[in-house]
Amino acid sequence: MLPENMAMQPHIRFVPEASVLILLDQRRLPVAEEYVTCRDTKDVISALRAMVVRGAPAIGVTAAWGCVLAAREMKSQEPDAPWEAGLDALLDSLAAARPTAVNLAWAVERMRALWKNAAPGGLDRLLAIWRAEAERIQAEDVALNKRIGDLGAALVEHGDTIMTHCNAGILATAGYGTALGIVYSAHAQGKNIRVIANETRPFLQGARLSAYELFRNRVPVTVACDNACALLMRRGMVQKVIVGADRIAANGDVANKIGTYGVAVLARAHNVPFYAAAPLSTIDRATSSGEGIPIEERPAREVTHLNEAPVTPRNVPVYNFAFDITPANLVSGIVTEQGVLTAPYPQSISAAFAAAARRTPPDATREESSG
Amino acid sequence: MLPENMAMQPHIRFVPEASVLILLDQRRLPVAEEYVTCRDTKDVISALRAMVVRGAPAIGVTAAWGCVLAAREMKSQEPDAPWEAGLDALLDSLAAARPTAVNLAWAVERMRALWKNAAPGGLDRLLAIWRAEAERIQAEDVALNKRIGDLGAALVEHGDTIMTHCNAGILATAGYGTALGIVYSAHAQGKNIRVIANETRPFLQGARLSAYELFRNRVPVTVACDNACALLMRRGMVQKVIVGADRIAANGDVANKIGTYGVAVLARAHNVPFYAAAPLSTIDRATSSGEGIPIEERPAREVTHLNEAPVTPRNVPVYNFAFDITPANLVSGIVTEQGVLTAPYPQSISAAFAAAARRTPPDATREESSG
Repeated sequence: MLPENMAMQPHIRFVPEASVLILLDQRRLPVAEEYVTCRDTKDVISALRAMVVRGAPAIGVTAAWGCVLAAREMKSQEPDAPWEAGLDALLDSLAAARPTAVNLAWAVERMRALWKNAAPGGLDRLLAIWRAEAERIQAEDVALNKRIGDLGAALVEHGDTIMTHCNAGILATAGYGTALGIVYSAHAQGKNIRVIANETRPFLQGARLSAYELFRNRVPVTVACDNACALLMRRGMVQKVIVGADRIAANGDVANKIGTYGVAVLARAHNVPFYAAAPLSTIDRATSSGEGIPIEERPAREVTHLNEAPVTPRNVPVYNFAFDITPANLVSGIVTEQGVLTAPYPQSISAAFAAAARRTPPDATREESSG
Repeated sequence: MLPENMAMQPHIRFVPEASVLILLDQRRLPVAEEYVTCRDTKDVISALRAMVVRGAPAIGVTAAWGCVLAAREMKSQEPDAPWEAGLDALLDSLAAARPTAVNLAWAVERMRALWKNAAPGGLDRLLAIWRAEAERIQAEDVALNKRIGDLGAALVEHGDTIMTHCNAGILATAGYGTALGIVYSAHAQGKNIRVIANETRPFLQGARLSAYELFRNRVPVTVACDNACALLMRRGMVQKVIVGADRIAANGDVANKIGTYGVAVLARAHNVPFYAAAPLSTIDRATSSGEGIPIEERPAREVTHLNEAPVTPRNVPVYNFAFDITPANLVSGIVTEQGVLTAPYPQSISAAFAAAARRTPPDATREESSG
């Protein structure tokens, strides 16, 4: 079992002595606590694809460490062989491991830019720079989540039941969480809140992960099948919906776990406010609307089998879209480290980025505690 | 595996020589074809509770045979002991096996009325009367389903993709199906249709049962997690929603498998017509609206475990409401053996019952083929 205070025990952990990245295997939770050790880029790519680690910010942090492993990999070549092209290729493959979360490419490109903009130097120098940068990305994420949590907690009222979909918590980030960060902050403020975790088929991130970390952190949580969402809202059992985001377009359209869009439509139909929580790095200003966000289709087996046992007849095809797009008009607010953005989103998003550029020099979070 | 033409092989089968009721165990489909043998009322009640057989019409047929087994049970007492009170008690317990589907009580009360209204006679006479009546209920159900299917098929257009939730097919009835009966009729008419079967957590009737029987009957079917419903509608991949019903109130409110209400809200939001298909026996005119329909809460284990493996952390509670209510205003039509009823439902439902009373003497379907 994970220790009680999971925020203190990063589930993404780089061990410099061994040059390995150790990932808590989220596929096995809550039944078992097992770890996957990544020794090279290929290991990181398979861990990302297999969803050993998932959640947009956690994917970003993992990818940053993947860059470090990529540099290690080039270093193990012949000493004087050219390594730049090979490293670029490894970074490209890493960035392409999964298509939807913008944080993956964001982290890889941040690492690449640091390399390209740095004074020339060998791989040893790059490794040192990148290790520090990956640590910084990880620490920044925890700090951002705490800010998001504290800002978002103002939206939560005493006695609220908050529905969440998928897992945008400790396990989806470097620590603390975005949507669940808001829950943790409100809970810490003494607000008497409860959470309904939609189980989130097919991967069951809500049943397995959100329920797990909320329970461990003593926030009252009840799991419901995704099917129950409408009934629970109809009965007045849900006061807020708060979810994370895998990518947010410049117009405020939110890509998140499959089913989120349906929850948003139902929330609107029942007058329940619907919030997305994410750091600004999740907002992809190069994508003008949700239509430009690619929707990953994942292997059929996630739907056709439960614990290795088939649940659909063999030869019957399945749809397994991993994400959907919630149009901005269904989003009551986007909780970021720059505050709660509201419609019209093109303007509020631009303003938030401008404020971030003014107020936050690139290394402003360096002194904050590490994740 | 079931034989190709499942409609020819009743999944609810009374064997008079052995006085046993043999039920296809729907919990094991599509992986295995196993049967549960019921020898007395208690066996039938546990089979109903455990959902060996489910689906409102199938529950009704099973309950009718349960009455026959109840009479057998009383017959095995001392020859001259009074049996009337004991039989009444057995019927009461049978009628209370599950709370939501009106067909259960409907079938039991139809059997009881036949007993009470019949000329006095011994248990042997009652057994003969009841066996014939249970056979009649079973044959009537198949005939009704065929009529519903043929009438409903007129709503289906060439090229339609029909979304269905749960299983209202062969396996939910004495044969042929209500919602899927419409699909089978439209398919038989040569309309080039496809079905999306929502997997229907937690019991997975869509993934396991609807997909199974549609595939066996060569209707193209794709399974999707319930979560994907909104995305599929948004992409224009769904032209009609057709579901069954466990109980319909006098005002047209439809109680059906949990998640149906959410699908109906989403269908309305995407301008997709939403139909419920059910025989008039599913309409409970004594219940004025959906608020009067009890919603069964089923054991937590259906949600917390998949194939015996836990998927939620121990000690985390779950909601497991088995049904929800779709308000009549979201229902485009109710397909019955008396035609497609539309709003205002109080009037169309009354008219359908009046027409049925005029046109269908109690034994009008006796000559139709047996299920």
